[in-house]
Amino acid sequence: MEVNSVVELSLLYDFYGGLMKDNKRRIFEDYVLNDYSLSEIAKEQGISRQGVHDTIKRCTKELRDYEEKLCLIEKFQKTKEMVNQIRNISKNVQESGNMVEIAKIETLSAKILEEY
Amino acid sequence: MEVNSVVELSLLYDFYGGLMKDNKRRIFEDYVLNDYSLSEIAKEQGISRQGVHDTIKRCTKELRDYEEKLCLIEKFQKTKEMVNQIRNISKNVQESGNMVEIAKIETLSAKILEEY
Repeated sequence: MEVNSVVELSLLYDFYGGLMKDNKRRIFEDYVLNDYSLSEIAKEQGISRQGVHDTIKRCTKELRDYEEKLCLIEKFQKTKEMVNQIRNISKNVQESGNMVEIAKIETLSAKILEEY
Repeated sequence: MEVNSVVELSLLYDFYGGLMKDNKRRIFEDYVLNDYSLSEIAKEQGISRQGVHDTIKRCTKELRDYEEKLCLIEKFQKTKEMVNQIRNISKNVQESGNMVEIAKIETLSAKILEEY
């Protein structure tokens, strides 16, 4: 699987995996998180390779639908980005002793809280 | 409705409302967000008061189930609390000029990022 897909699917799984049915989740986990091949999973589950492929495709659609409806990953990512900025600013302030930047930390944290 | 219930249900709605079916969502919104009575909604929807009551009960269960499975509100609340601490610390540092506290901002932001 492409690295991009792994990153996207792992993130979707982290957020919405709890809503997947157990049997589908196991197949999805084996493929996305444990890096098993379609054939290996097929053998393990006693189903066809095509069956595994279809299940993963359906799971991916299901997870993407959740994000399309809820946008919680998007929201989390934005927060993460701002918290990252806060961390960098606090490092800079400690190193430089320049207090001016602290106002930015307040602005950023206020912005995060507004969005909750 | 009790204030506690309104707060809980609004929060659940904010996070998971997008997964509710349109017709159920409208009834839930009218009751929780727009503060209509069961009888008013029943009249508007052309169903019984008991029907409205049951729909709201089912919706509440559905939303609580999502949170039980995903715990995303819990996660958001923890982040919010830490961002609140960051904001307060940045205010204090600006007022007091005491730089020591800035290390705490870095620790808190690192902690938030770790959990993502």
